[in-house]
Amino acid sequence: MTISRFTKRVSNKIGLPPGSLVHVGKERTESVTISIIDYDENQLHEEVVATVEECFPFKETSTVTWININGIHNSEIIDKIGKKFDLHPLILEDIMNTGQRPKLEDFGHYLYIVLKMLQIDDNEDEIKAEQVSFIVGENFVISFQEVEGDVFDHVRGRIRSGKGRIRKMRSDYLAYALIDAIVDRYFVILEKLGDRIELMEDDLLENPTTDTLQDIHGLKREMIFLRKSIWPVREVISLLERGESSLIHETTTMYMKDIYDHTIQIMDSIESFRDMLSGMLDIYLSTISNKMNEVMKVLTIIATIFIPITFIAGIYGMNFEYMPELGWRWSYPMLWIVIISVTLTMIFYFKRKNWL
Amino acid sequence: MTISRFTKRVSNKIGLPPGSLVHVGKERTESVTISIIDYDENQLHEEVVATVEECFPFKETSTVTWININGIHNSEIIDKIGKKFDLHPLILEDIMNTGQRPKLEDFGHYLYIVLKMLQIDDNEDEIKAEQVSFIVGENFVISFQEVEGDVFDHVRGRIRSGKGRIRKMRSDYLAYALIDAIVDRYFVILEKLGDRIELMEDDLLENPTTDTLQDIHGLKREMIFLRKSIWPVREVISLLERGESSLIHETTTMYMKDIYDHTIQIMDSIESFRDMLSGMLDIYLSTISNKMNEVMKVLTIIATIFIPITFIAGIYGMNFEYMPELGWRWSYPMLWIVIISVTLTMIFYFKRKNWL
Amino acid sequence: MTISRFTKRVSNKIGLPPGSLVHVGKERTESVTISIIDYDENQLHEEVVATVEECFPFKETSTVTWININGIHNSEIIDKIGKKFDLHPLILEDIMNTGQRPKLEDFGHYLYIVLKMLQIDDNEDEIKAEQVSFIVGENFVISFQEVEGDVFDHVRGRIRSGKGRIRKMRSDYLAYALIDAIVDRYFVILEKLGDRIELMEDDLLENPTTDTLQDIHGLKREMIFLRKSIWPVREVISLLERGESSLIHETTTMYMKDIYDHTIQIMDSIESFRDMLSGMLDIYLSTISNKMNEVMKVLTIIATIFIPITFIAGIYGMNFEYMPELGWRWSYPMLWIVIISVTLTMIFYFKRKNWL
Amino acid sequence: MTISRFTKRVSNKIGLPPGSLVHVGKERTESVTISIIDYDENQLHEEVVATVEECFPFKETSTVTWININGIHNSEIIDKIGKKFDLHPLILEDIMNTGQRPKLEDFGHYLYIVLKMLQIDDNEDEIKAEQVSFIVGENFVISFQEVEGDVFDHVRGRIRSGKGRIRKMRSDYLAYALIDAIVDRYFVILEKLGDRIELMEDDLLENPTTDTLQDIHGLKREMIFLRKSIWPVREVISLLERGESSLIHETTTMYMKDIYDHTIQIMDSIESFRDMLSGMLDIYLSTISNKMNEVMKVLTIIATIFIPITFIAGIYGMNFEYMPELGWRWSYPMLWIVIISVTLTMIFYFKRKNWL
Amino acid sequence: MTISRFTKRVSNKIGLPPGSLVHVGKERTESVTISIIDYDENQLHEEVVATVEECFPFKETSTVTWININGIHNSEIIDKIGKKFDLHPLILEDIMNTGQRPKLEDFGHYLYIVLKMLQIDDNEDEIKAEQVSFIVGENFVISFQEVEGDVFDHVRGRIRSGKGRIRKMRSDYLAYALIDAIVDRYFVILEKLGDRIELMEDDLLENPTTDTLQDIHGLKREMIFLRKSIWPVREVISLLERGESSLIHETTTMYMKDIYDHTIQIMDSIESFRDMLSGMLDIYLSTISNKMNEVMKVLTIIATIFIPITFIAGIYGMNFEYMPELGWRWSYPMLWIVIISVTLTMIFYFKRKNWL
Repeated sequence: MTISRFTKRVSNKIGLPPGSLVHVGKERTESVTISIIDYDENQLHEEVVATVEECFPFKETSTVTWININGIHNSEIIDKIGKKFDLHPLILEDIMNTGQRPKLEDFGHYLYIVLKMLQIDDNEDEIKAEQVSFIVGENFVISFQEVEGDVFDHVRGRIRSGKGRIRKMRSDYLAYALIDAIVDRYFVILEKLGDRIELMEDDLLENPTTDTLQDIHGLKREMIFLRKSIWPVREVISLLERGESSLIHETTTMYMKDIYDHTIQIMDSIESFRDMLSGMLDIYLSTISNKMNEVMKVLTIIATIFIPITFIAGIYGMNFEYMPELGWRWSYPMLWIVIISVTLTMIFYFKRKNWL
Repeated sequence: MTISRFTKRVSNKIGLPPGSLVHVGKERTESVTISIIDYDENQLHEEVVATVEECFPFKETSTVTWININGIHNSEIIDKIGKKFDLHPLILEDIMNTGQRPKLEDFGHYLYIVLKMLQIDDNEDEIKAEQVSFIVGENFVISFQEVEGDVFDHVRGRIRSGKGRIRKMRSDYLAYALIDAIVDRYFVILEKLGDRIELMEDDLLENPTTDTLQDIHGLKREMIFLRKSIWPVREVISLLERGESSLIHETTTMYMKDIYDHTIQIMDSIESFRDMLSGMLDIYLSTISNKMNEVMKVLTIIATIFIPITFIAGIYGMNFEYMPELGWRWSYPMLWIVIISVTLTMIFYFKRKNWL
Repeated sequence: MTISRFTKRVSNKIGLPPGSLVHVGKERTESVTISIIDYDENQLHEEVVATVEECFPFKETSTVTWININGIHNSEIIDKIGKKFDLHPLILEDIMNTGQRPKLEDFGHYLYIVLKMLQIDDNEDEIKAEQVSFIVGENFVISFQEVEGDVFDHVRGRIRSGKGRIRKMRSDYLAYALIDAIVDRYFVILEKLGDRIELMEDDLLENPTTDTLQDIHGLKREMIFLRKSIWPVREVISLLERGESSLIHETTTMYMKDIYDHTIQIMDSIESFRDMLSGMLDIYLSTISNKMNEVMKVLTIIATIFIPITFIAGIYGMNFEYMPELGWRWSYPMLWIVIISVTLTMIFYFKRKNWL
Repeated sequence: MTISRFTKRVSNKIGLPPGSLVHVGKERTESVTISIIDYDENQLHEEVVATVEECFPFKETSTVTWININGIHNSEIIDKIGKKFDLHPLILEDIMNTGQRPKLEDFGHYLYIVLKMLQIDDNEDEIKAEQVSFIVGENFVISFQEVEGDVFDHVRGRIRSGKGRIRKMRSDYLAYALIDAIVDRYFVILEKLGDRIELMEDDLLENPTTDTLQDIHGLKREMIFLRKSIWPVREVISLLERGESSLIHETTTMYMKDIYDHTIQIMDSIESFRDMLSGMLDIYLSTISNKMNEVMKVLTIIATIFIPITFIAGIYGMNFEYMPELGWRWSYPMLWIVIISVTLTMIFYFKRKNWL
Repeated sequence: MTISRFTKRVSNKIGLPPGSLVHVGKERTESVTISIIDYDENQLHEEVVATVEECFPFKETSTVTWININGIHNSEIIDKIGKKFDLHPLILEDIMNTGQRPKLEDFGHYLYIVLKMLQIDDNEDEIKAEQVSFIVGENFVISFQEVEGDVFDHVRGRIRSGKGRIRKMRSDYLAYALIDAIVDRYFVILEKLGDRIELMEDDLLENPTTDTLQDIHGLKREMIFLRKSIWPVREVISLLERGESSLIHETTTMYMKDIYDHTIQIMDSIESFRDMLSGMLDIYLSTISNKMNEVMKVLTIIATIFIPITFIAGIYGMNFEYMPELGWRWSYPMLWIVIISVTLTMIFYFKRKNWL
């Protein structure tokens, strides 16, 4: 388990003044890549730029500009963007610190949104979280990702093809499309976890092992992590949907409401899964109890049948001089009759008790 | 268990622009049937139409028109209706995606309502959910069902016979009648589950088996599913009952309030059932413990009585040359007396301990 | 267990239009009795009437009239009252359907109040609930009971004797007095259940049996039922106490507040009892564990002492020709010394382990 | 356990009109004592009066008067005070009924406050609750206690000595001082219970017995009782602190806020203690399991070592005529070698399993 | 466990008038040290003063003054400060009583803030809490610590070096910086506890012992303590962030919001850790059950194999005169064949039961 997912590491930042640009998170060495998509209904311009300064001219254009920055560990780049786009120093600090809780902050002329992108590999148990930050202005959206990913590819595709409304709408709709792409990923995670629960349930009934317990525990922990990551998203989107910011136009709030419904649904599913996992733990524990019960029954049946008849055999193994039975002709066959009757009585008794 | 009931599947939709009409849910091949009932206090017109265009004239009439569409997997039909009745693309998407959470959306000139119709077969364990959507306009109600069902037959009957107020009222009352039919079904589900709990409780006291545990677990899961499906309905109806929409007339809010009370009652019952099922699990577990206790007692009694006397017999089975007791005349009868006394002492001890 | 207490049965009503007068509940065949008490400060008129029409003249009088109807299974009577007193059809339906959740509805010129009267017999385990409905108008209160009961006798007595304020006040105070009588019953139920818990706790410590478990479980279920029945009453009375209805005069709200405090107190006690019952279940379970532990100890002590010495006896029961010990003079006494030492060692060991 | 602490007894009051003055609570026979302290900044008058009428002149004085009444079982006295000070009949009823929930009622010209005074003796397990009521008027405070107690002695001392602000302030500050004295007692109770928990925790780790379980259970019950008694106090003081009553002057609200903080702190501590006690129960239960495990291990080790070697001895105790081993010279020593090897193998196996 | 951390000790204060300056907490004998930092953008003055009166001149200056007082057990000093800075007597009392709950009180011309500084040593199990109080005025901040600590060193460093904004801002920003230093410490505590949980989890799977249980229990208790200490901080900072006090300027509220986010994150992590610890307890308990199961299996296998064959050996150890088998030539080898077959059958049976 990587417990560090559950709390923000601050050790290396303690004592620095607020607004200090220090990257906090998994160490990265990849070079930062910056790509620009600039579009309106009629035109489309795509570019991968080498230096951050090349983005700056797009700030002034009336077209919608999406600046995507892969890599947040270079404080110089973040600093330049901050200065150019007039961002609050605390925001820059938050962008570089991957331990943020999802949140939205409204600065009037721009919105700052932090979300968590989640990913689960088929052959790994743990959900990985990557921090994605957005700066949403009137004519631009700047997105910051920890590493290059494929989550926004569909959005890029829609912009390129001009399908749907995206080319006709403003930066708020672009922000919606990007957030929607992230929230859709949550459903994929849920599907995968749901499938695991389903598999595990079959296991649980057929052959519960200590591994099953580990798996239940592991899934419970992932649920805790999921809830922790997604719960605040609900709040963020609720703020967007209520349309209190002038940056979010009325035509877009309807779409935001749609994402809001999705986050509610996701929280519902997480709660249902948690309840189910608790139920499965109960089943596991009582299956263990049942097994122990069965073991005890076998022991008791064997012991209860043989201990008395072994005693009888012991009696006639004694060496007393005066034991009349020893000399009788039919003692031995008689003894077998006694032994068999005792055994049958016991078996009958266990049958009645439903132990056999 | 079909875990897919608990989360919305999105895999086949990821990357599509919002408003894309893709059917998400159990695959259907039945052809879509469309039936129309058009009525006011004095007249009644019923028709099953072959093409969706045949419904369109009814949009303009001042009579109440109920268009019922069985089958939501045909995107073409949905799209045509959407265009004719001026519905938001996201609504059309939601109608076709059976993974919706029950909700109400007010677009001013029409309301969009999603509910879940629940069904439980007598010989199956799982509740089945079907999505039902309503578009409620000033003069019309459009209902969308996944497959043809019988839940609205009573409403049809009342319209035909003209009994009750339904023919005298507007489309909001029709919507009420349809929602009421769905909510009444929830009570039927609860009755069936309640009966199962009652049966199971008798089982639990008389002869708890591993199956009982499975049943308790299964019912708990159905309760989780029920709560997930019905909880948001409460909210939907609360919105209707508060009469904030101009489409819901004051005379109808009283009826909506009635349904609202019903959903509260249903939630109450679900909570009570959940509490009871938890209690039954406790009983099951302690019954298992009690049984193990009993098994242990039998083993202990048998072992404790026979082990000491077997030891005594063992002693006199030894072959030492100098064992004076072996030669005594009354050794053997004496030994029996000793054995019987030891046994009686043990039995007396167990009686006092309440083990016998 | 009668699970039907926990959910409203609707099977026989499905498909009927709202407002249909169908009795839902325990089948009743008793004839309906109607009694009238009409009073003001100076005069008092009491009557048992044969037909419902005889009540109607009292509607117009300025004196306070209390019409008590025992039996709600006669739809004709309910219908006539509804028409005369101008009651909403849904109210009439609710009066006849005993599955209502306690609630209050304010129609301006009258209030509709539903409550549950609870009863527990000394030799029965289950709380019985009877539905009581009130129609409170300016000059009259109509009460509907399922069967004739004695809960209102004290109120009748106070009206007859003229003690207290009741004769000086209006219909709202009468409604208060009737509700108060019902709420006071709840305290009596709590006292009885409290006494049972107290008895059971003694049992639990002295001699817990499977019956104790059944009793705890049964009481827990009754608590669930109580809470389900009383929780909404709190809300009803809170509405009355806030004095939003013009039918409740300010002098009476003070009294309503008093009942409100009582319902809060009842809910507090139910919660406390629930907590205690959970605690008792824990005690029960750990007592079972302790008992099993004790059984195991007895078995282990006996087995651990006798198995080794039986082995020693077994050794000298062997028939090898060359076993020098067999021929020694002091072998047999020596052997006893060995056996006794082993036994004492074991006993000492158990003492140190605190098993004896 | 005295379960009656948890619910209000009403049996002896049922059927009486509201406002009937009947003492409900532990039966008392002590005579009622009435003491008066009348003071302002300059003067102080203290008196123990024989009849209630002697208090009445103080009602009109502009000095602050504190009338303390020990004993609430004399309805005559309560009635006279009620008439003189113009108190609502329901208030008088509440004063005499010791089953009240802590509450505040604002009648404009006076406040009615009910609190619970708690007490725990060192050699007793149960917290005792006594009801204390206050009537706070412009110039007077009347306090009603069930029996004479020492809780207000410190307040008396401060009035007499003139230390602090008490002599300079009005009746609201006096009320504050009296409530503060009661709330301070709650901290003392918490300290005592905390000490018991601490003691018990040591016990739990060293030598858990059935008594430990009883103690945990008992403390849990006391926590339930504490919470039930103190939770509503929070609400009462919150009402005072918000300064909505004109009787509470602004200078005093600051002090009320102080008590409010204290009640929050008390509730916090109760919750922490409850959590700890739950944790201790878990420890207790797993300690029991561990002990059983240990018992089982001893049994298994002994049985597993001796059962096989006893079998070997049994084989050579057989009396077959043709058993070659019996005649061999080195059979017997060989046999011992076999027995010792088996034993050592077993011991080695248990060591590897960590059972020894 | 030091239970006193969980509740406020009042014993030595009972009966004193409110506002009495009595030190409540761990007894201290160190002398109180007072240090002053006075600065604005251009100048910086640092001083350690001998008497409290030396701070007083700084009250009037327009520069920001930070007076740090280490040691709160000297009532004389506290009293003098209170008089000079015009603080409410209850505030002075609270400063000296280390049992405060974190809170904020707004007196218009100054704010009073109480927080808990937490510390955990690597070789100790318990979190230590120290109370820190702040008085925030227009031009000054007074901080009160129980003992000299290093938590504010970074802030001092930033003031001295003039890095960041601190020298350009007013006293509210200084307060922010000090609170931030305390809240950052909470993250450090969480990191340490998180590491312990991670270590323990490995332990739990490899070799759970009674110590593991103790550790889980200990961590749970620390979580209870953490939550109790930090939960109210959230509220305090929420009050600051909302900017209702005129002492907190708008430029600072943004920074306060940042701390607010941190406290939310801390609460989230605590909840996640609590959930995880509960899960670990479940794992521990079921591991114990599994172990017992394994012990039982070994016992049962040994007993079930040897008890029957020992019985067979016992039979032929009997001394009857007429036992034909005893004289047969091949009896003994036959017997071994029987014994081996029985043993193999048993082993086969256990294999099929998955016990081997």
